[in-house]
Amino acid sequence: QTNVTVYGVVDVTVESVKASGGVDVFELDRRTRVTSNSSLIGFRGTEDLGNGLKALFQVESSFSADAGGGTLAGRDTFVGLEGGFGKVQLGKLTTIMRAAGAKVDFNPAATGIGFQAATYGTIGGVALTGIDERINNAVMYTTPNFSGLTAQLAYSAGENRVSPDLNGAEGVNSQSYQLAAAYENGPLYVSAGYAVAQDPLVATSVLGAASNSNISDELKDARIAVKYTFPSNTSVSALYDRAKYEASSALGDTDVKRNAWMVGAEQKFGGNQAVYLQYARSQELDGDACDFDACDNTEFSQWTLGYTYALSKRTMVKAYYTRLNNDSDSAADFYLSKVGMASRNAGADPSGFGLGLRHTF
Amino acid sequence: QTNVTVYGVVDVTVESVKASGGVDVFELDRRTRVTSNSSLIGFRGTEDLGNGLKALFQVESSFSADAGGGTLAGRDTFVGLEGGFGKVQLGKLTTIMRAAGAKVDFNPAATGIGFQAATYGTIGGVALTGIDERINNAVMYTTPNFSGLTAQLAYSAGENRVSPDLNGAEGVNSQSYQLAAAYENGPLYVSAGYAVAQDPLVATSVLGAASNSNISDELKDARIAVKYTFPSNTSVSALYDRAKYEASSALGDTDVKRNAWMVGAEQKFGGNQAVYLQYARSQELDGDACDFDACDNTEFSQWTLGYTYALSKRTMVKAYYTRLNNDSDSAADFYLSKVGMASRNAGADPSGFGLGLRHTF
Amino acid sequence: QTNVTVYGVVDVTVESVKASGGVDVFELDRRTRVTSNSSLIGFRGTEDLGNGLKALFQVESSFSADAGGGTLAGRDTFVGLEGGFGKVQLGKLTTIMRAAGAKVDFNPAATGIGFQAATYGTIGGVALTGIDERINNAVMYTTPNFSGLTAQLAYSAGENRVSPDLNGAEGVNSQSYQLAAAYENGPLYVSAGYAVAQDPLVATSVLGAASNSNISDELKDARIAVKYTFPSNTSVSALYDRAKYEASSALGDTDVKRNAWMVGAEQKFGGNQAVYLQYARSQELDGDACDFDACDNTEFSQWTLGYTYALSKRTMVKAYYTRLNNDSDSAADFYLSKVGMASRNAGADPSGFGLGLRHTF
Repeated sequence: QTNVTVYGVVDVTVESVKASGGVDVFELDRRTRVTSNSSLIGFRGTEDLGNGLKALFQVESSFSADAGGGTLAGRDTFVGLEGGFGKVQLGKLTTIMRAAGAKVDFNPAATGIGFQAATYGTIGGVALTGIDERINNAVMYTTPNFSGLTAQLAYSAGENRVSPDLNGAEGVNSQSYQLAAAYENGPLYVSAGYAVAQDPLVATSVLGAASNSNISDELKDARIAVKYTFPSNTSVSALYDRAKYEASSALGDTDVKRNAWMVGAEQKFGGNQAVYLQYARSQELDGDACDFDACDNTEFSQWTLGYTYALSKRTMVKAYYTRLNNDSDSAADFYLSKVGMASRNAGADPSGFGLGLRHTF
Repeated sequence: QTNVTVYGVVDVTVESVKASGGVDVFELDRRTRVTSNSSLIGFRGTEDLGNGLKALFQVESSFSADAGGGTLAGRDTFVGLEGGFGKVQLGKLTTIMRAAGAKVDFNPAATGIGFQAATYGTIGGVALTGIDERINNAVMYTTPNFSGLTAQLAYSAGENRVSPDLNGAEGVNSQSYQLAAAYENGPLYVSAGYAVAQDPLVATSVLGAASNSNISDELKDARIAVKYTFPSNTSVSALYDRAKYEASSALGDTDVKRNAWMVGAEQKFGGNQAVYLQYARSQELDGDACDFDACDNTEFSQWTLGYTYALSKRTMVKAYYTRLNNDSDSAADFYLSKVGMASRNAGADPSGFGLGLRHTF
Repeated sequence: QTNVTVYGVVDVTVESVKASGGVDVFELDRRTRVTSNSSLIGFRGTEDLGNGLKALFQVESSFSADAGGGTLAGRDTFVGLEGGFGKVQLGKLTTIMRAAGAKVDFNPAATGIGFQAATYGTIGGVALTGIDERINNAVMYTTPNFSGLTAQLAYSAGENRVSPDLNGAEGVNSQSYQLAAAYENGPLYVSAGYAVAQDPLVATSVLGAASNSNISDELKDARIAVKYTFPSNTSVSALYDRAKYEASSALGDTDVKRNAWMVGAEQKFGGNQAVYLQYARSQELDGDACDFDACDNTEFSQWTLGYTYALSKRTMVKAYYTRLNNDSDSAADFYLSKVGMASRNAGADPSGFGLGLRHTF
């Protein structure tokens, strides 16, 4: 039998969150929450097949440690082969581009309301670009590690092919591709990637750029990320993400573009403590869609201040404060554990602080 | 790595149940069922952090061994710290008050149709008081054990805060608290607790006491439980529970009160066998609501006779009979594995017997 | 503590599927999919109770390794006792009859689009007979193994008993029974079984044979299966299945009958490779229902050609092609991982090929 490793994380925090500002009667009052932050349980193993070849498997499930419930295999789950040629995996996977968003984030495991993908993982805080999500129905090839450098090609099958309809409209066949490379060696981490999603059928319209099941739309995203750790145990990080959603309506092209960036710094001290501060910004929307619907005041930013105290290598106390500042026509919410922003809350600012425990087993 | 313990229970019985009496055409005919009784699988562990401090975690899932399906982390799931100060846990938890309901019940693990919380865990057999359920989004502090005595304060965040509406009605912010103490030493177990749930938004109206998402309601519950085991391997137990649901309607106050009690006894014999008999009663409803809707004939009782034969410490054959007697205006059903009582079945009496296997791993 | 064994399978393939033919505008265009084929994770164990008696348990869950999600205890899950008397199991179970369908199929673990129960596990490709599904709410007795021979009686409780309605129509009480025997010794496997399902409430009507919650229907199925392995590492298999669905409507009896058969062969070579070819056919529907709705052209067949290359005992590369040929009035789809055939696609032929990895842990 394989040596199956059982592993997991239980991360729960007590939080106080609200979203003030915006239209008064819709304000989201302060409330106390007990929040499970990406708690997980997994089973994984490898098998030596000889000749430098290995079989790999992983089944990782998410669960809500606060109120129960979860998704079997809801996280990275795959079967794969690894050898001199690199690594091939089939399943539900985290790509280099997704990992980059988490890599530059100093929240433990890039989780909780302080995680800032609300800016660099969405368009206008509303539609996900998908870059900070695992890709489903994936085939992923990763090169061998050359002195810290790896490259990766990932494909995700949409499986929802819709035939052209009787009126001759185009068919839909969602598929996406990501090409990326990462370099990680000693104190330096750098990555760059490019993604194209065909017919992503973005569920939430961004401005007038509504998707249509019979019309081809496309989402393109480019991301670079960097992180460096100084001998003083100071780490700094930065990320830049550029997304473009190409769609059209009866009125003409309704493309939307968005640039976002993030910077952060963390200082470790006392052997088991750390403080970090990070700031991210999603700039004003741009593109043809702005001809139909004003793009002014659609920018927003988020900053997070955090502190961690390690009781051991596997158990940590953590505290944080985060605030997301929406411009008057933006209704962005936290990326994880939302407070419940809706378009009527435009201009309101979600904020929250929390304290909790994270245990890794 | 932590030492992760995998544990669980598979408990399945073959039952014959029915609910006879009441309006004839709505009678629930006798049927055979194969029932999974609180089957579970869990993962737990502790980590010694030094200085008498320990980290604790548990992820416990429920599943239906009869027809498949289940809820990841659907049972007690938490992360916590334990030390000289006591124990703090964050997650989905069983409190002393909930445990008390199970402690006095002689059904193995207080599960199956014979479990009598139908009386002491509901108001009028219809609305749950919540005391016999795990609390979600919980923060719970338990004192150190002083010669068998522990006290506990539990908080559950509702997280559903609704803003006051435009007409100035009150907002809703569900939260609940439980304060309890238990003493367990040798043959004696005693516990007492008090719970308050603000804005519980009781889903099912009890008489005229309908909840309203804009009106504050409140549920208060007090419970005492005791169990004693004589040297003859005879155990006796008793529980008293008093619940009050405070609500109001356009007509005025619609408070409802309910008292319930339970007594039981078990005799062990032959080294591996036991018989038990228990009886519980939910008394007639009382309160302002009775001014609007008659509370006469709303009482009901349940009794259970059971037998267990242990094939080993971990494997048991069990057999039981239970009957719930509803007064003419009561439609209470079993607490677990209901037969399907509805208001039109008022006065019908659910009953059932079963035989099955319980294995603990 | 029991020795709990953690085990599982991750099986993922990249496929290209389509269903061409039939009405042109409804054709299901070729699409690429990444498909999880019956991936599973389980926990099982036994306990020696002395005197030749053993307690058994298993909790087996299904999951989608491609897009996440799964069902806790969604596969064989039970508690049981085994001894000189044979074996009794309670839970969700695979019977000898279901196992027979998988036994004769040469697809690894009888899974993926190449699995041919579309013919022998359905009536007209539309309604499942249930024989190739696990039975829920089951009690199953299996005799001891007499030189390779075992017999089995299985009962499944429907638990959905509906009382006779006010107009005096019959009540419904779904229950099913299977009686079967299997002989497996050296190169030979033979099995035969008979199943009766009372009030199966077949969801999808077969021709005019619509079920009705107030009318008794019944499903009967007989199956024989055989497999033989020659010293040359050539295996051949065959299965015959006869199903009859008895129902009635206002117009009179609407019984439907179907015969189906399957033959297959596999050749192992090179120590770790195998090729297999198999063919199955569901013959034209017959019965009283054909008086109301023509049964002509309701037959269909499926053939599968596959190749497996074992990298080790637990890791396998597999490739396959399968094609299902529907007659003009048949709209059968693959049994597992359907392409999406609907009645409007009648006459179209689902086909697909794939390549992937299967790892057992």
